[in-house]
Amino acid sequence: MTKNFKGIAASNGVAIAKAYLLVDPDLSFDKKTINDVTAEQARVDDALKASSEDVTLIKSKAEKNLGASEAQVFEAHLMVLADPEMSGAIKQKIADDKVNAETAVKEVTDMYISMFEAMTDNEYMQERAADIRDVTKRIMSHLLHVSLPNPALIDEEVVLVSKDLTPSDTAQLDRQFVKGILTDLGGRTAHASIMARTLEIPAVVGSDVATKEIAAGDLVIVDGLTGDVIADPDDDTLAAYQKKADDYLAQRAEWAKLKDEQSVSADGKEFVVGANIGSPKDMAAVLDNGSEGIGLYRTEFLYMESDHLPTEDEQFEAYKAVVEKMGDKPVTVRTMDIGGDKHLSYWQLPEEENPFLGYRAIRISLDQTEIFRTQLRALLRASAFGNLWIMFPMIATLGEFRAAKKIYVEERTKLEESGVKVGDIKLGIMIEIPAAAMLADKFAKEVDFFSIGTNDLIGYTMAADRGNDRVAYLYQPYNPSILRLINNVIAAAHNEGKFVAMCGEMAGDPIAVPVLMGMGLDEFSMSAPSVLQTRSLMKKLDTTKMAELAKQALDAETNDEVIALVKEVTQ
Amino acid sequence: MTKNFKGIAASNGVAIAKAYLLVDPDLSFDKKTINDVTAEQARVDDALKASSEDVTLIKSKAEKNLGASEAQVFEAHLMVLADPEMSGAIKQKIADDKVNAETAVKEVTDMYISMFEAMTDNEYMQERAADIRDVTKRIMSHLLHVSLPNPALIDEEVVLVSKDLTPSDTAQLDRQFVKGILTDLGGRTAHASIMARTLEIPAVVGSDVATKEIAAGDLVIVDGLTGDVIADPDDDTLAAYQKKADDYLAQRAEWAKLKDEQSVSADGKEFVVGANIGSPKDMAAVLDNGSEGIGLYRTEFLYMESDHLPTEDEQFEAYKAVVEKMGDKPVTVRTMDIGGDKHLSYWQLPEEENPFLGYRAIRISLDQTEIFRTQLRALLRASAFGNLWIMFPMIATLGEFRAAKKIYVEERTKLEESGVKVGDIKLGIMIEIPAAAMLADKFAKEVDFFSIGTNDLIGYTMAADRGNDRVAYLYQPYNPSILRLINNVIAAAHNEGKFVAMCGEMAGDPIAVPVLMGMGLDEFSMSAPSVLQTRSLMKKLDTTKMAELAKQALDAETNDEVIALVKEVTQ
Repeated sequence: MTKNFKGIAASNGVAIAKAYLLVDPDLSFDKKTINDVTAEQARVDDALKASSEDVTLIKSKAEKNLGASEAQVFEAHLMVLADPEMSGAIKQKIADDKVNAETAVKEVTDMYISMFEAMTDNEYMQERAADIRDVTKRIMSHLLHVSLPNPALIDEEVVLVSKDLTPSDTAQLDRQFVKGILTDLGGRTAHASIMARTLEIPAVVGSDVATKEIAAGDLVIVDGLTGDVIADPDDDTLAAYQKKADDYLAQRAEWAKLKDEQSVSADGKEFVVGANIGSPKDMAAVLDNGSEGIGLYRTEFLYMESDHLPTEDEQFEAYKAVVEKMGDKPVTVRTMDIGGDKHLSYWQLPEEENPFLGYRAIRISLDQTEIFRTQLRALLRASAFGNLWIMFPMIATLGEFRAAKKIYVEERTKLEESGVKVGDIKLGIMIEIPAAAMLADKFAKEVDFFSIGTNDLIGYTMAADRGNDRVAYLYQPYNPSILRLINNVIAAAHNEGKFVAMCGEMAGDPIAVPVLMGMGLDEFSMSAPSVLQTRSLMKKLDTTKMAELAKQALDAETNDEVIALVKEVTQ
Repeated sequence: MTKNFKGIAASNGVAIAKAYLLVDPDLSFDKKTINDVTAEQARVDDALKASSEDVTLIKSKAEKNLGASEAQVFEAHLMVLADPEMSGAIKQKIADDKVNAETAVKEVTDMYISMFEAMTDNEYMQERAADIRDVTKRIMSHLLHVSLPNPALIDEEVVLVSKDLTPSDTAQLDRQFVKGILTDLGGRTAHASIMARTLEIPAVVGSDVATKEIAAGDLVIVDGLTGDVIADPDDDTLAAYQKKADDYLAQRAEWAKLKDEQSVSADGKEFVVGANIGSPKDMAAVLDNGSEGIGLYRTEFLYMESDHLPTEDEQFEAYKAVVEKMGDKPVTVRTMDIGGDKHLSYWQLPEEENPFLGYRAIRISLDQTEIFRTQLRALLRASAFGNLWIMFPMIATLGEFRAAKKIYVEERTKLEESGVKVGDIKLGIMIEIPAAAMLADKFAKEVDFFSIGTNDLIGYTMAADRGNDRVAYLYQPYNPSILRLINNVIAAAHNEGKFVAMCGEMAGDPIAVPVLMGMGLDEFSMSAPSVLQTRSLMKKLDTTKMAELAKQALDAETNDEVIALVKEVTQ
């Protein structure tokens, strides 16, 4: 029976494939008394063997896709499965207590887990407890003959259906097989959505019901352009969506022709369309999509993906790799933005009532200056190899910018005096706190450039956490209050002859782009797969008309009114 | 030896008295074997008797100060102390195990506590466990001859010294004896500070070291005007501060003469100086200080101090009591502002990552409309008895205001159609979210008035939680970004001929008042004890000069620069 429902369109394109459900299976069982001890012990051996085969396969996939260090955890899992002491204890329990294999596995592994977990000050033992927990699930799944989903084991074309996707889930996705993503939770700016756009996998998120309505193996259509989801479509529907999927691919092929062109409006005004990246690994997509620069290099991933504070040399290599690849195109690096919802495993930040309003980004850098100085030295050294710009995140006051700049100048001077070659660097700030947007005229006299970070700017201006479903309706990018702040920033920068970029989600949003062109924004930086689409849109728009549109939008009353205005003018 | 340190000046005046330390005492003891069972059992009887005497006294004080319902918990404590089963079990254990009274009390009460706490789905039993825990502390204090501090038992003049003060601590304070408050934690806008100002008790908060540096009985000077604290002062210092304390009281007496005057500037411009209240109990201070209105009636206290959602009639009585007492002076009632850091014991709100950016205030009212309608009906009925204004908190968008107004009009119409008398009501919004401040020109066309809530407005605009010590430096009321938003709101309101008030901490702040007068703010609403001081300040200031000052402040770069500008002009 055909089922229709709607979610949030989170990554463009149309996917049609069988559903792969990434949900925890039911691993409950009954405790039973058994007579045939040998048969029951043989079941344990079989389950251990099958589990080892699974893990070996997952491990080799992880090594290929993620690298050897990420795959190490699976080595630990294999060691648990091969541990003769544990398997011996399980078999002994079957013999002693005459219980079924499930009961014996559960009781023995529980005992190990609580023993290791009790060593609360020993991180190594805590990790062993987690390993045993993971491995036990897998053994149980084989004993109970239920399948334990694992994105790394997918070997046919599927639509991945899950409640939510964690960063570690998405790290294991293989683009060759995962054709679409469909989740119950999340919004357009959730991690899963950003990853889907980066990987160019069509996605619908926040559907509420996907994991309930869809069964494993159902044929599913995921329309990432509209948010529509159809399970078990009839033939006409299937044909119509197959055509839509093809049309979208044709459209993408059209956009691809713009790869080596400059971004320019219908009336010949030039813009910079750049890409946002998190690590040198993202450079392939940047170059494939003909980005004219990198408007945001999020350096916190260097910190988050490491198991220690990255050294100056480790950072230097990561920055140098990117600026070298970009040649004379600008690379804007944002200094560490840890805190808020970004945590480090090896450095415990304080618990806070409202982390988004707390100790994060430049506030940490100005407090823990040694960490900040290390990053600045790495950036200064890398600047000799390309066109590097530096910006500070979460600047609220002029005092903060001046303090950060003072430290930057000190490190620059020290390096130059010791003979290290340093390039010309532009020094700017993120505008993502309303206070900085309100005082942009004053900041513009002291910085080289602004980059507007709309994700946080919208959150603070509307007083709404975009990760909180109950207030998600207040995350309104086109609310005239937001547009006025943005316009204020652009006008203030231009009044001082300074450059102004945007690196939030809005910069690649087809509703926002016409208005921002009208306001005269200089650079639009977005996820790499949106670059060509945006360049194509810009070619069709006249900046004089867009300036008139921007004026109307600034005088509008609501988010919806702005959407209607833009659609009227651009369609 | 004299000790000096500094905290945050949180409530004006100078207190000089002996320190009363409100900190948990050391109740540790050694397990001992005893021979004289009868003597040890007698120690238990003595401790139970002394504890009962304490609790009886606390109970009678609580009945007098807080009312019978608040004192009920102490009745439960007395029942525990009189329980023959528990005292019997303790004495039996002394006889059986030959242990000292401390050990027997601890083991028996622990047993009861864990038994009751295990009944996790029985709220009554959970409360009994809490009662036994409280009572055990008291019995132990008598066995160990250490004193258990209790603000209700203070019967001489003291300076109260504690880590922090909870709402329940402050509810027990007797102004007759508590002459000063000194805490380790908190800032000017913490609960303890607001309560100290309401009770007119000089206070210094956030001293970090008070409970470490000061011993019970030390003579302490608390200068609530500067934040200075001196313990064990020499004679000259003591004399100087006694003079300062007297001067301040003389100054207050001067201010008191302004009680029946109108608030007016040196050049004859009239302002409204109003008071903020949380319940009808605060009305004495409002009337004593000659407030010209109530600029903020925080109705959430009705919800927080109750054990159920207050009924329409309960609310009606609370609103009517206040508007009647104020006669024709305006009373601005803010609809329920629950959520954020304000919780209800009987209604669990969802856990949120960032509650200040979450489900609170009007966001709850528009979602749980029955609760909102009940409050509106109570307000509409009360409006017939005085001059009542209603405002909605945490409005971010015009859509929210329109939705709230629609519900208000529906309830109003229904009441009027059923013949209930309803007064003329002005309908306005709090401006405490940057988005609303940015769009004030549009809001001004639809509302009757604005009230600027600076505490939250500053928090969101600076992206800093004022309760978080690590980012407290960013809570900058005079930052030009904040002043520009406020000025935008005032200008937008006046452009439409609308009234604009302020009800945050800034409205009574001597640095902010001159600038706000210059911007033309209509009403300044503050804690009642600041009303006369503000009226006195206004009399000295010329609005033309203040308008010039405001212009300079709006063009300043930093918070500190504005403070310097104001001091230069007003001193």
